Amino acid sequence: MKAVVPFKTVNAKSRLSAVLTADERTKLARLMLDDITGVLREAGLKVVLLTTAPFKYDAEIVVSEKDLNSALNDFLSSASEPVMIIMADIPLITVKNVRDMLASPADVVISPGRGGGTNVQFIKEPQKYHVDYYGASFLDHMRIAGDSGLTAEVFDSFNASSDIDEAQDLVELHIHGKGRAAEYLRTFMALDVSKGRVKVMRD
Amino acid sequence: MKAVVPFKTVNAKSRLSAVLTADERTKLARLMLDDITGVLREAGLKVVLLTTAPFKYDAEIVVSEKDLNSALNDFLSSASEPVMIIMADIPLITVKNVRDMLASPADVVISPGRGGGTNVQFIKEPQKYHVDYYGASFLDHMRIAGDSGLTAEVFDSFNASSDIDEAQDLVELHIHGKGRAAEYLRTFMALDVSKGRVKVMRD
Repeated sequence: MKAVVPFKTVNAKSRLSAVLTADERTKLARLMLDDITGVLREAGLKVVLLTTAPFKYDAEIVVSEKDLNSALNDFLSSASEPVMIIMADIPLITVKNVRDMLASPADVVISPGRGGGTNVQFIKEPQKYHVDYYGASFLDHMRIAGDSGLTAEVFDSFNASSDIDEAQDLVELHIHGKGRAAEYLRTFMALDVSKGRVKVMRD
Repeated sequence: MKAVVPFKTVNAKSRLSAVLTADERTKLARLMLDDITGVLREAGLKVVLLTTAPFKYDAEIVVSEKDLNSALNDFLSSASEPVMIIMADIPLITVKNVRDMLASPADVVISPGRGGGTNVQFIKEPQKYHVDYYGASFLDHMRIAGDSGLTAEVFDSFNASSDIDEAQDLVELHIHGKGRAAEYLRTFMALDVSKGRVKVMRD
């Protein structure tokens, strides 16, 4: 079975530019990808990277110049086996999380991200389904599953829900991360617990 | 077994005052409490409300003028059976979540909140443990468990991690909520998916 990981090869994680340099963002994005693809492989999945430009990486690379939804729906419509679609910025996800999603009896398993997003989907019959990311995509995906006559399970995971998008999200990675991305972040960022909400700050 | 729910009876959910009136905050806080105590009872727990002032509610009420940590640690030190400590602002939590925590073999089960917080703890031997909320309490609680020679399990749940503290958190309640608090919120707030990050706005 395949896991498709959309990956932005240029100007990755731009919303972290308030706290990280371009080099740091590139490195962090790459290490998060490594953490996630490592987890996927350990769970027995073949990794497919979906990129907008050629990229050197130890995985099958699918390059598409289309928007994310069109590129993913092209992939789904030509898939002959179950597909997992997983975002490249959820480095807390574990092998157990992935295995639990694979073990679900539902036709579609949807793991929500914060703010109405969708961070992971496991789709048993890709030809019967399509995706619609952006906006409140969680609600859209639940509706698409229903309209397609497919059963949907909401996968309840803090790990999978924690996408690292903004400065505040780095706190989750710093505190809960067990992989190389977290290790890297901790080399130059510390937790600031001095007042109110916990933040990250340069060491 | 008892579940202790700290509940602020005055000026509840003050960080929501940018988007909700005082009356709306009071009502939402009360409905979130109702949702959570309903879930706890269905999971077989006796509910204890820990308040700073007398409060009329269908539960055992413990009034303490001490700070949260001292009040909770007083409770733990005199407890003769396992105790769950659960925050009053996590209305997405389900009966299954609570039952899964109760079924853990660990001495302490810790369910993280966003930003380093601790939203639920299930403590098998309360006399051997103490709590330290505020700041990065998740790390503190993991350390306290270790220092006390207790095994700790991190409970991975998006539901339990979603505390409703700030305006942006209302999106989670609006999208994922199944209880009365969500129902109430939806009577006067709609989702705004017009641009970028999903928000809530008045109908």
